Amino acid sequence: MILEKIKKPNDIHKIPLAEFPQLADEIRSFLIESVSRTGGHLASNLGVVELTLALHNVLDFPDDKLIWDVGHQAYTHKILTGRKDEFETLRKEGGLSGFPKRGESSCDSFDAGHSSDSISAGLGYVRARDILGEKYHVVSVIGDGALTGGMAYEALNNAAELETNFIIILNDNNMSISPNVGGMSHYLSAIRTAEAYTGMKMSVNKAVKKIPHVGTAMVDAVRRTKSSIKQLFIPGMLFENMGLTYLGPVDGHNMRQMMRLFNEAKRVKGPVVVHVLTEKGRGYEPARRNPDMFHGIGPFDVKTGRPTEQKSCPGYTDVFSEALCQEAEEEKKLAAITAAMPGGTGLKKFSQRYPDRFFDVGIAEEHAVSFAAGLALGGVVPVVAIYSSFLQRAVDQILHDVCMQKLHVIFAVDRAGLVGADGETHQGNFDISYLGMMPGMTVMAPKNDWELREMLHFAVKAEGPVAIRYPRGNAYQGMKEHQAPICLGKSEVLRNGSQIAVLAIGSMVEVCQKVCENLRNAGSDPTFVNVRFVKPMDTELLDQLAKNHDLIVTVEENVQNGGFGEHVCSYMEEHHPDCHVLPVAIPDRFVAHGGVDSLRKQLGLCPFAITERIKNYRKE
Amino acid sequence: MILEKIKKPNDIHKIPLAEFPQLADEIRSFLIESVSRTGGHLASNLGVVELTLALHNVLDFPDDKLIWDVGHQAYTHKILTGRKDEFETLRKEGGLSGFPKRGESSCDSFDAGHSSDSISAGLGYVRARDILGEKYHVVSVIGDGALTGGMAYEALNNAAELETNFIIILNDNNMSISPNVGGMSHYLSAIRTAEAYTGMKMSVNKAVKKIPHVGTAMVDAVRRTKSSIKQLFIPGMLFENMGLTYLGPVDGHNMRQMMRLFNEAKRVKGPVVVHVLTEKGRGYEPARRNPDMFHGIGPFDVKTGRPTEQKSCPGYTDVFSEALCQEAEEEKKLAAITAAMPGGTGLKKFSQRYPDRFFDVGIAEEHAVSFAAGLALGGVVPVVAIYSSFLQRAVDQILHDVCMQKLHVIFAVDRAGLVGADGETHQGNFDISYLGMMPGMTVMAPKNDWELREMLHFAVKAEGPVAIRYPRGNAYQGMKEHQAPICLGKSEVLRNGSQIAVLAIGSMVEVCQKVCENLRNAGSDPTFVNVRFVKPMDTELLDQLAKNHDLIVTVEENVQNGGFGEHVCSYMEEHHPDCHVLPVAIPDRFVAHGGVDSLRKQLGLCPFAITERIKNYRKE
Repeated sequence: MILEKIKKPNDIHKIPLAEFPQLADEIRSFLIESVSRTGGHLASNLGVVELTLALHNVLDFPDDKLIWDVGHQAYTHKILTGRKDEFETLRKEGGLSGFPKRGESSCDSFDAGHSSDSISAGLGYVRARDILGEKYHVVSVIGDGALTGGMAYEALNNAAELETNFIIILNDNNMSISPNVGGMSHYLSAIRTAEAYTGMKMSVNKAVKKIPHVGTAMVDAVRRTKSSIKQLFIPGMLFENMGLTYLGPVDGHNMRQMMRLFNEAKRVKGPVVVHVLTEKGRGYEPARRNPDMFHGIGPFDVKTGRPTEQKSCPGYTDVFSEALCQEAEEEKKLAAITAAMPGGTGLKKFSQRYPDRFFDVGIAEEHAVSFAAGLALGGVVPVVAIYSSFLQRAVDQILHDVCMQKLHVIFAVDRAGLVGADGETHQGNFDISYLGMMPGMTVMAPKNDWELREMLHFAVKAEGPVAIRYPRGNAYQGMKEHQAPICLGKSEVLRNGSQIAVLAIGSMVEVCQKVCENLRNAGSDPTFVNVRFVKPMDTELLDQLAKNHDLIVTVEENVQNGGFGEHVCSYMEEHHPDCHVLPVAIPDRFVAHGGVDSLRKQLGLCPFAITERIKNYRKE
Repeated sequence: MILEKIKKPNDIHKIPLAEFPQLADEIRSFLIESVSRTGGHLASNLGVVELTLALHNVLDFPDDKLIWDVGHQAYTHKILTGRKDEFETLRKEGGLSGFPKRGESSCDSFDAGHSSDSISAGLGYVRARDILGEKYHVVSVIGDGALTGGMAYEALNNAAELETNFIIILNDNNMSISPNVGGMSHYLSAIRTAEAYTGMKMSVNKAVKKIPHVGTAMVDAVRRTKSSIKQLFIPGMLFENMGLTYLGPVDGHNMRQMMRLFNEAKRVKGPVVVHVLTEKGRGYEPARRNPDMFHGIGPFDVKTGRPTEQKSCPGYTDVFSEALCQEAEEEKKLAAITAAMPGGTGLKKFSQRYPDRFFDVGIAEEHAVSFAAGLALGGVVPVVAIYSSFLQRAVDQILHDVCMQKLHVIFAVDRAGLVGADGETHQGNFDISYLGMMPGMTVMAPKNDWELREMLHFAVKAEGPVAIRYPRGNAYQGMKEHQAPICLGKSEVLRNGSQIAVLAIGSMVEVCQKVCENLRNAGSDPTFVNVRFVKPMDTELLDQLAKNHDLIVTVEENVQNGGFGEHVCSYMEEHHPDCHVLPVAIPDRFVAHGGVDSLRKQLGLCPFAITERIKNYRKE
């Protein structure tokens, strides 16, 4: 095993080039075996084995800086920097993160998780290096999917002015998590296909003769000419036009070619884009055939590629997926928007059934939201389905383009609250705060599958911006006996009691059933409320509760700062100062990866911890 | 006066083309006269007089949709849609907004204010039109400056797939508010200059012969060839490569040429970029020579171009500007970043004194922040100066790229709180909420000019992310007798009293002096605190206050939801339930344009209103 010789960073420099292909095979086998047991990101990691080896061959760690965009393709990098033996703990609490983490290794230069920021971060390193007069290489690796994100373009635009070395690797696998969309994707496809080269020389003379002096010639003539000029295709000219040197395309599984190009790239004085063609899922047939499914996957059987753990019940995403199709059947003006995640957000079914009303805009959350604003103004009812953590990207667009104009845009905020294994970059712990601060926004959270369907229906019929936040994982199937109709700004009282009232939001309703039981066992008679509307707040209920309760406990899977609990605190302080409030929420910190139940215990969001906090508060 | 004939939308269709030049002159004179009295955006509006006339000539209102990016160039559009007589009220409370507003006219299709979202909104209209089977034209007008914003590129990328008509006017004046930066700007410059055309034909044959089969040829050869191929310059090929039809460039002051091109553009089946060259400040020499100064300007003398109102004292921006240069003198690793606003944010002086440590990244707030993250990781101390309202664009980057990695990035959050005349799109009323929810973020606000300097010095020496929020306008010069040293998380007690404690943030300290005086006159003995640190909260002080106070009043120029007051409420509820809190803040709504003092009265943030609220609370 050559892989055994790699124990620490730069050990790869001792491996003869001739042994690299075998090393790549060994890494690939290790990845498949290991991820089949732990789950994790597979297809993206299989695609960059040779690319990572070639980069490690030409770089020195930790001096040189290697920045992975999104970071779900850094497994080989982790193996090559001495973390192979920790892969059994991958994505488990206290174990190896699924993403680069500076805390894990000095060879990780940037904590990644979200998309399209690697060029910005890399350019920052470069400028710092130049200001401080240091010498090292900076390499940002960005996928073609991530290149649909606008900030990557902001960074390319800014990098164009640079006069010192900065290497941008375009890891082009013709995919985001799902197949790519948009103009840039077509452009890269054209580079990939051989036609681009062969057609070029033939048509150039003909084309150039036709170039008119634009502005005086007729426009139709211009357009005809342009389309023949387009065949005059020079790879990378789009990047060159922006002022970046372009090298490539190069086969991302041919290490010799890549290393030669990378070494050349290191000599360029200025920003250089190296275009590397890779194949997602390379070397493992099930992943190659179905990279979408093998993007992030649980444990699976290596032989068949089939998951070894069966889903016990439909997830909230599945419930949303079905419910949205039903709504669309009835409401012909309903449209759905995803930012490159038709699978993850449950919109695949919708896209097949209503292709004319479905829009995958690419990894472009900002555009997704303002595009939805335009749709709403044009008379359509847009549903924007984006994970809580990624929707952070579009805070200004939601506030400025949607809420300020009171537009009827529906936000399906999936993965709200703790997400578990993906860790701190993906936890959806802030949406109640950032949506709650926006005037005119309605924010709901369902207690179970039935309620998600009802809330979606309510949202479609509602006015103005409406967000529904729901967690990752199984949809709670219980509490079906509570089916009060959804009314704007009204909570659902599950049980009337006195003295203590427990107000739980979304996923916390299930958790607080047990809390209320505990309290009853301890002799209390708590009121139990399913909040439903984080905003607008049910002040009428709060006024009522104030009459025969002296403590309101709010429970939410969101940070405390700016959360629902604080809104209740301030309302009660002003209107009912003698009725106290205990806000239970996620403390003011980031939450690393781990199992959701375990994280809840850690954060004080399990029934036991909540019960104890209430009891202790009462004692004081 | 031809202008007198234009009373309502589409009246322009009755004006013979021959009279258009005179009409343009009349509009220009009107704009100069009118803005010289009211103040407003001038240079950008003077640049698009002919463009707007040409668009109104080929479009029908309100059926067709015209979307102005940013919206500070819509004055001629307002004049042509029946709002000429309201210009005396421009940007005044209850008067005409300085930006497009759907509430003002059915001919305004999108409420603009922030940059780079017009293509997204326009594409939304287009898709809605097609889904609903309607017929109208959609035109988005975007400046070359706004094209440095990533979401414009996200939208272009998405628009490329469209098969129906959508017109994007690239209003290219070679400026944002300040001269433009970046690769795209160089590219557009190349189109603008004649060399691009003339050089083309000569070099093409030579260049094409040299095109190698990339990947096998040596890289240096490739690079040499590319740079000669670059002279084979075809206007708009960058857009064509992305899949968009490109027409132009056309002289943006030649109405006949523009109208011909616009009519051709209307026939294109798909997205079409029309490249229009305009001159900022056209027709008024002082504005043409100094478009930066005439971007947004107060009343001025038409003859000289000089402001008629003199600044009474330095603004917070000036104080910051000076202080930052001082810090940079001492701290050689300090760098400063602006997103296309070196003037507005006070970084011009820094850029002249320390050009190597100054970065204007374009209208690209997201990139600015992640770029700063990279700088910090590379050992530099970056100061990111962005207006509060624009920093909303980068919430995810601050949270995910800076706070999560605990990076020492300083945010100079200018225009925090009410900004006045620019209105709801520019009010900085949310930063305490969105920054306050972020773990590890330090948020400060100075009471006066001295304190801003001290806080900046503190921030440079601090660890982790630090934001300083300060308002638009004059820096408060009073209260110099209070100069307690800045300590992390410590408030400044200005006066010890009992029973009532008034905790004021930043600009509200000045306001609350009077509140405390009122209270004293009414027989109370209030404690008066300059909060200084919104985050981390001074819990030690709160614990102390709880001993001999029964009411804490918090006062902040930020929305109440997620604001400082709510944080105090929840802390006191948990730890000192018997000491009550009255949070005074901006209510849960957007705030339109008007004078800051008047808006404060309207919102209950003036001394009288605050005093009354406290008195009434005490009575209950």
